[in-house]
Amino acid sequence: MNKITIHEVGPRDGLQVEKQTVPTDLKIKWIQQLISSGIDIIQVGSFVHPEKVPQMADTDRLFAHFSQSENRPERTRLSGLVLNERGLDRGLACGVEFFCMGVSASDTYSRKNTGMSTSEATDRIIDIAKRATEAAKAVQVSVQNAFGCSYEGAIPESSVMRIIDRYLNAGLKRISLADTAGHAHPQRVERLFTAAMKLDLSVEYACHFHETYGLGLANCYAAMEAGVTSIECSFAGLGGSPSAKVKSGNVCTEDVVHLLHKMELRTDVSLDSIVAIAREAETFFGRELPGILHKIPVA
Amino acid sequence: MNKITIHEVGPRDGLQVEKQTVPTDLKIKWIQQLISSGIDIIQVGSFVHPEKVPQMADTDRLFAHFSQSENRPERTRLSGLVLNERGLDRGLACGVEFFCMGVSASDTYSRKNTGMSTSEATDRIIDIAKRATEAAKAVQVSVQNAFGCSYEGAIPESSVMRIIDRYLNAGLKRISLADTAGHAHPQRVERLFTAAMKLDLSVEYACHFHETYGLGLANCYAAMEAGVTSIECSFAGLGGSPSAKVKSGNVCTEDVVHLLHKMELRTDVSLDSIVAIAREAETFFGRELPGILHKIPVA
Repeated sequence: MNKITIHEVGPRDGLQVEKQTVPTDLKIKWIQQLISSGIDIIQVGSFVHPEKVPQMADTDRLFAHFSQSENRPERTRLSGLVLNERGLDRGLACGVEFFCMGVSASDTYSRKNTGMSTSEATDRIIDIAKRATEAAKAVQVSVQNAFGCSYEGAIPESSVMRIIDRYLNAGLKRISLADTAGHAHPQRVERLFTAAMKLDLSVEYACHFHETYGLGLANCYAAMEAGVTSIECSFAGLGGSPSAKVKSGNVCTEDVVHLLHKMELRTDVSLDSIVAIAREAETFFGRELPGILHKIPVA
Repeated sequence: MNKITIHEVGPRDGLQVEKQTVPTDLKIKWIQQLISSGIDIIQVGSFVHPEKVPQMADTDRLFAHFSQSENRPERTRLSGLVLNERGLDRGLACGVEFFCMGVSASDTYSRKNTGMSTSEATDRIIDIAKRATEAAKAVQVSVQNAFGCSYEGAIPESSVMRIIDRYLNAGLKRISLADTAGHAHPQRVERLFTAAMKLDLSVEYACHFHETYGLGLANCYAAMEAGVTSIECSFAGLGGSPSAKVKSGNVCTEDVVHLLHKMELRTDVSLDSIVAIAREAETFFGRELPGILHKIPVA
């Protein structure tokens, strides 16, 4: 099996839904611990309006901190999510080297969230991606709702392929397919990534799953089987809606690392360090968080 | 993909670890509901000493009840677990038509649990299986600890193959590989079942997983990919050690059925009925049970 890249999205996708804002100093501590654990990419935050998502208000400050030579990680890359031109400007100004951005394969979802159709949103994202590429930054583009949508239900494979095609034509070769609403199942995952892979074998595919129906790890395995080389995950399984009775967090980083270790992959990444961060997060939020490995008592 | 058989082991493997004994009438009600849901095989109980496992003391009575013509299920088969000759005698006396029995691939585990080495235990189980076969009963033999052991750690593939070989030589063609202690991961599952399948393509393989590290469903998917046609699972994810802080229950029936439905398999089985039983079980035991689907509010 291929070398697998771990893309920790907890500080962004995990924390953005939490009501209790994590102080910048604690975020820095957690990100430093994630860096020490040997994770490859860490999504530090997103460039949204601070009043809309107060939890992400310190994104620029976090990047500025980690851009200083004494704080800059040696191997780990730090990614930032941008939604629009203004976000890209902010990201470029504070030293982001790896930009993530995307569109929804569901037209309804796209209109509700961006006021644009999927096709219009794709034009716009490709423009932003080109600007980031011209500024010599790494770019990952994503297809959200690639496996289904809460509004539209099943999303046809052709809708996903159309967006991927447009990305490929724009020379964008780092692509993430995201199961925004928990519709994915391993067979569909294997089928979609296998089909996508056939379009261009040089593309680096990432997967982004939630644990809504307990299929997150099964989906990651199926994605790896299909040739996906990057897994997006969140420490302690943070993410989704914390108030929902149902688990809906991102696939949990320490559970993914445990699976990889079982497969004799990424044994360079410290499971213990990530478990320690997950436990700190549990203490901070004062509730049980969804991941599994961090609940297993130390032997 | 093949037609998948669902083998519900909740009434046996799920309940046997519970301190609070489920009254016979309630067991009958749950088993009837499981029958109505369209499940293929239900493991009603095990023939152990009633003082050793009081929860299983009514196994003979349950079989006697369901052997009466007015209670006998039309399509569903009822299985019983036997550990020894005495258990087989009891099972034959109360009308069991489908016998399950097995040995541990771990010599240490086998000695601790049966006082016999794996090899001696295999001799004995094959004798019992032959007697059941001669009595025209269906038999499923299993290899416990097929993926690892709490005492011995990793179990070599060759130890598992040796037992399967002996089963095949005895003409036993319904074989279950069980991950007794939660050591399995999907890659190993796929490898082991693929290797086993090569020995004799006419064997019907079953899988038995626990959710210890959140890999239960991933393991089921990998097993199906390798050609396994029967999944052992437990409603509400009952099983394992209920007092453990860590999930360790059997892979959860309603979560498996949800996965199968996503794959457009076994849409004849009613997810709603199984969810209803899982919720009743949660009310009965007065605590949150491990499965996922039964916690998702009805839309």
